[in-house]
Amino acid sequence: MEISLNSIGVIHSPFHDPAEAPIQASRSTAMGSVEVFAQYAAGLSDLNEFSHLFLLYLIDCPHGYALSVRPFLDDQEHGIFATRYPCRPNPIGLSLVRLLRVDGNRLEIEGIDMLDGVPLLDIKPYIPDFDNRENARIGWYDRRAHH
Amino acid sequence: MEISLNSIGVIHSPFHDPAEAPIQASRSTAMGSVEVFAQYAAGLSDLNEFSHLFLLYLIDCPHGYALSVRPFLDDQEHGIFATRYPCRPNPIGLSLVRLLRVDGNRLEIEGIDMLDGVPLLDIKPYIPDFDNRENARIGWYDRRAHH
Repeated sequence: MEISLNSIGVIHSPFHDPAEAPIQASRSTAMGSVEVFAQYAAGLSDLNEFSHLFLLYLIDCPHGYALSVRPFLDDQEHGIFATRYPCRPNPIGLSLVRLLRVDGNRLEIEGIDMLDGVPLLDIKPYIPDFDNRENARIGWYDRRAHH
Repeated sequence: MEISLNSIGVIHSPFHDPAEAPIQASRSTAMGSVEVFAQYAAGLSDLNEFSHLFLLYLIDCPHGYALSVRPFLDDQEHGIFATRYPCRPNPIGLSLVRLLRVDGNRLEIEGIDMLDGVPLLDIKPYIPDFDNRENARIGWYDRRAHH
């Protein structure tokens, strides 16, 4: 089943090369911005009251994907769905970032880990009641060599 | 910019009507399963070592979306991007569920909140180092009438 979506904006980042981008938003203090296209700006109302957002965006993977990958933070291969590796069958990025300010259709963001110019798909407010779980088992991430 | 994706599987849920589906996976104890299409099954390797997963899926919104909505858990309207309301410009659902068992290309899941048959877009392991934040401000969710 083919699915058609439209970008709702673009993310502006200081990073232009995958080699320089931080691994995961939680490890990044880089600043950037989200430009939401004008026709969607009304959807940002009250977003300024939230401190953290999930950004969903499309990752550019010119070489496609593999079903088994070695994640950046481990030296072993794992199934792609057991990793957060960016290039995957549907390369949708999910980054939890800090919202510093809303200025019209522009969001000032801390914790940028994506490349400059990636198409924005969605913004969702981070709500710990929905998005946190206690006592999660985390497989290879807990056993990895480079803690 | 139009974006084309392909579903990688389908989610089997006990819910067939939006009126009966739980509000948010964190409030659901319903059981269901994720069927990953055979050609992607190799990507599930080592997933069984994780207790919680993000499922990304496409929500069916036959009536489209509004930029201002009244969320299920509040009596006030907010911009769509300040809510988790399902029908949005790109209706990508994000549910954090518990993985009970992996059986070939089938995942047994607890915490189902989506409707039966929704197309699966991605599976990401939940890793608190990446996905948790302390002291988040949560706007209307904190002030809502029906705590």
